[in-house]
Amino acid sequence: MKYICCFILFTLTALCGVAAGFSTIEKWGVFELELKGPAGGNPFLEVRFGAVFTDGNTTVTVPGFYDGDGIYKIRFSPGATGDWRYETKSNRWELTGKLGKFIVTSPASGNHGPVQVQNTFHFAYADGTPFKQVGTTIYNWTDAPEELQEETLRTLAASPFNKARMLLTPQPTPYQNHFAPPRWPFAGTPPYAWDFSRFNPDYFRHFENRIRQLSDLGIQADVILFNPYGKFGFETMDAVADERYVRYVVARLGAYRNIWWSLANEYDFLRTKTEADWDRLGNLVQECDPHQRLRSIHNGAIIYDHGKSWITHVSMQNGAAVEEPGRAEMYRGVWRKPVVYDEVKYEGVTQYRWGNLTGQEMVHRFWCGTVAGTYVGHGDYFTTVEEDTWTSFGGKLSGQSAPRLAFLRKVLEESPAQGIDPIDKWQDVNTGGVPGLYYLTYFGQATPLEWRFRLYKNGVIDGQHYQVEIIDTWDMSITPVEGEFVTKKLDNYHYVDVAERVVKLSGKPGMAVRVRRIGQDGKPAATVLPND
Amino acid sequence: MKYICCFILFTLTALCGVAAGFSTIEKWGVFELELKGPAGGNPFLEVRFGAVFTDGNTTVTVPGFYDGDGIYKIRFSPGATGDWRYETKSNRWELTGKLGKFIVTSPASGNHGPVQVQNTFHFAYADGTPFKQVGTTIYNWTDAPEELQEETLRTLAASPFNKARMLLTPQPTPYQNHFAPPRWPFAGTPPYAWDFSRFNPDYFRHFENRIRQLSDLGIQADVILFNPYGKFGFETMDAVADERYVRYVVARLGAYRNIWWSLANEYDFLRTKTEADWDRLGNLVQECDPHQRLRSIHNGAIIYDHGKSWITHVSMQNGAAVEEPGRAEMYRGVWRKPVVYDEVKYEGVTQYRWGNLTGQEMVHRFWCGTVAGTYVGHGDYFTTVEEDTWTSFGGKLSGQSAPRLAFLRKVLEESPAQGIDPIDKWQDVNTGGVPGLYYLTYFGQATPLEWRFRLYKNGVIDGQHYQVEIIDTWDMSITPVEGEFVTKKLDNYHYVDVAERVVKLSGKPGMAVRVRRIGQDGKPAATVLPND
Repeated sequence: MKYICCFILFTLTALCGVAAGFSTIEKWGVFELELKGPAGGNPFLEVRFGAVFTDGNTTVTVPGFYDGDGIYKIRFSPGATGDWRYETKSNRWELTGKLGKFIVTSPASGNHGPVQVQNTFHFAYADGTPFKQVGTTIYNWTDAPEELQEETLRTLAASPFNKARMLLTPQPTPYQNHFAPPRWPFAGTPPYAWDFSRFNPDYFRHFENRIRQLSDLGIQADVILFNPYGKFGFETMDAVADERYVRYVVARLGAYRNIWWSLANEYDFLRTKTEADWDRLGNLVQECDPHQRLRSIHNGAIIYDHGKSWITHVSMQNGAAVEEPGRAEMYRGVWRKPVVYDEVKYEGVTQYRWGNLTGQEMVHRFWCGTVAGTYVGHGDYFTTVEEDTWTSFGGKLSGQSAPRLAFLRKVLEESPAQGIDPIDKWQDVNTGGVPGLYYLTYFGQATPLEWRFRLYKNGVIDGQHYQVEIIDTWDMSITPVEGEFVTKKLDNYHYVDVAERVVKLSGKPGMAVRVRRIGQDGKPAATVLPND
Repeated sequence: MKYICCFILFTLTALCGVAAGFSTIEKWGVFELELKGPAGGNPFLEVRFGAVFTDGNTTVTVPGFYDGDGIYKIRFSPGATGDWRYETKSNRWELTGKLGKFIVTSPASGNHGPVQVQNTFHFAYADGTPFKQVGTTIYNWTDAPEELQEETLRTLAASPFNKARMLLTPQPTPYQNHFAPPRWPFAGTPPYAWDFSRFNPDYFRHFENRIRQLSDLGIQADVILFNPYGKFGFETMDAVADERYVRYVVARLGAYRNIWWSLANEYDFLRTKTEADWDRLGNLVQECDPHQRLRSIHNGAIIYDHGKSWITHVSMQNGAAVEEPGRAEMYRGVWRKPVVYDEVKYEGVTQYRWGNLTGQEMVHRFWCGTVAGTYVGHGDYFTTVEEDTWTSFGGKLSGQSAPRLAFLRKVLEESPAQGIDPIDKWQDVNTGGVPGLYYLTYFGQATPLEWRFRLYKNGVIDGQHYQVEIIDTWDMSITPVEGEFVTKKLDNYHYVDVAERVVKLSGKPGMAVRVRRIGQDGKPAATVLPND
């Protein structure tokens, strides 16, 4: 909000000496300021409102929003402990020049901060804890009846998923024949009779409550701002309404630390917008979000240029790309950003070929993405809720993949903090890891009866000690191979075991081997070791 | 050359009435103007020289170059028939204000003009003739002894290759232990004692003679301006020398209609340059080339951003990407430009894994690229010339792939003019073609015993007639399947034959089927037909 740019900061300093009794919040929590202001006219259009926050080191300009009934709010999530001060600015006297202070304490256990990009291709929370994405898709779960929403939360709590893709606006689906959405994001009535200049605070209060509940469950909310699924008429917003909508949503939701912005689902299917519109809106999100949450855009058939600077990571719909790891790696090299295969088709039973993967195939795609150094998203498309599915409205999971994805997530949590990268790009597409430390080789639908211990030369010298385990990705077992493997140079490219040991495999599909360097203590090493 | 920008064109008009006796050249041929000028000092640095050409419709500013011994030349390839006039401009009186006229006639048979991008992903000559790229690599053939160069030309004449990648500057190789390059591009002596401000016209005269001979053979010359293969010291040029070099090369060679510019081979291995340097040099080639030849850059391990506007097509080194068609398609969707896999490893025998493909694997990679709607380049790395190979120095081909690539080229020449595109992207990666007209399904290393006639719905309705042929990509045979296939809708996605016919296959690897719509005359249709 540019109108606050030339704010006079010295007034903040005046507060420094003020004594105790201030509110406290934890780092990466949400400080919320609430003020009474004008309720007449159209406050969404007529009232400008925001604040500048500073702790003396960092100064952040934060937009506020109108919450109805003459209530104005500003939400800010501080990224540092200590004393913070603020001053409000508005074009209305009731809302301008308000000064305040609050104290930011250390984060509570389990609060690791927002997720950010780390090591080019990976993610980590702000406190450095790795975030290994295992996503799912529940487009309109917040529009379902309340008891179903509660069931969705229970299902998520017991699931492996740490990110959920969800639409911000309702979408018409078969389920809507039975239950219309209980609330709408705008004033007006469906279809098409919307007043896009008036948001419905009740809709957003409900939505953000669900966001907070996801955060409590440790789940990132990948909130999709625009979608092409018409019939209610949200796709008819013009550029002015689009901008107002983006600014309102970002101001309301952006302070929650589990927010990710997905600008659109299947952007190219939204015929009322051009690529120039998406660029403008993507840049707008970047510009107006003081919290700089992660930003992406999801495609239908036409791939977006994820090299654009407003995009923090690749959100890809291309199921074929995770049918084998050699494909999955390719987009990494193109954009040098984290790649999340957010839509790889759904596990399910349907006449549509985008929703009839077997559980085995869904698990396979996750493992392909994993060893390629990328991340994958799940969907569950079995009709369980009236005429609809988990991926549309939540409820229960029906597929067979979720427990196997929980197993994969456990393997990921045990993998090196810096993330899994291809070990020998374009040569051994089935192996990801960290050179000289950790290797995960996934055999996919191949059914080998043995695997010769063989490591690519990077990070390896003669005489290193490794442990080998056999992983059954479907039966969810990890079986250690007896004894150690000790490296010896084979040729220009590879090292093998000094005794040229070969690991026996079962001949089943979906098997993997995990190879971990053994430290001085005889246990798998956590970080790259000095050479033995 | 910006100094000619404000040229006064009315002087050209003065020539309009001048009578006959003018030289004639064919359209897309090379008009060469030669003038005497100063030989003292350093003409490469001190003399600016160029001309403006116009036919009344199009005006082109063309840079000239110094050819040694007081000789100055301008080369221009006109893209339209009729009368063309020119006026020279220089900072030396002997070279400025020279007026002239010449007549451009229709192109001779076999002259289709320069190759350009067509239909987003493909190439065509300027006269509209499709160009189906089947490339090879002969990095330093122009530095080999003369008799070997002549042999290379004879080999090329009998080969399927219609594009050759070649370095403009010599590279040290084992062969250089036996024969030093007979000429050098700069004044001075190897290694490192170069005067980068003085080009060696003899070197370029020889090189461009070879370019002309390639043109006579119908072969595009993909000329690589920079390479990382040091030891002679060309990688030590600074930014000023780089720019002078680019301008000189473009002025000398750009008029030849078979020129393609490859800015670098393995650009990321050239440690003396940054990505900003490559962008600057790529933009320079675009800016200073009046003929606007095709422009690309070739990578080592780090993929370039081929979305940049100076790049006309993708030149990719990634052998793994053509191991199967699903990978090969992916870069098309990213950049929406033609994709040429210029380096996919070489057929050969060597200790290096980039040069030991079997002939079968090389042919396989070409077919994978083909059905994915991309193009592939060949290399032959059998030691035949002293200690070196076709791909380094030309001579003879030793591999087994070339005849099979000739067979593939024949198939390509018979394919639709608009190019082969994936028919059902991300679903049926093995099939390319044109919907409702032409389908090529390549089974790769799979060995099916039958193929059910099945076409994706786009362009297909009930009752269309198709011919099916079985292609053996290795034994180079095309076997028609008896009778016609008539379409009938199967489901939401596919059509099958009314009698649900199945095509029997041999169970060999490397097989394909070609499916062509049959026209009213009972023959395969050349273009998309109105529905039957």
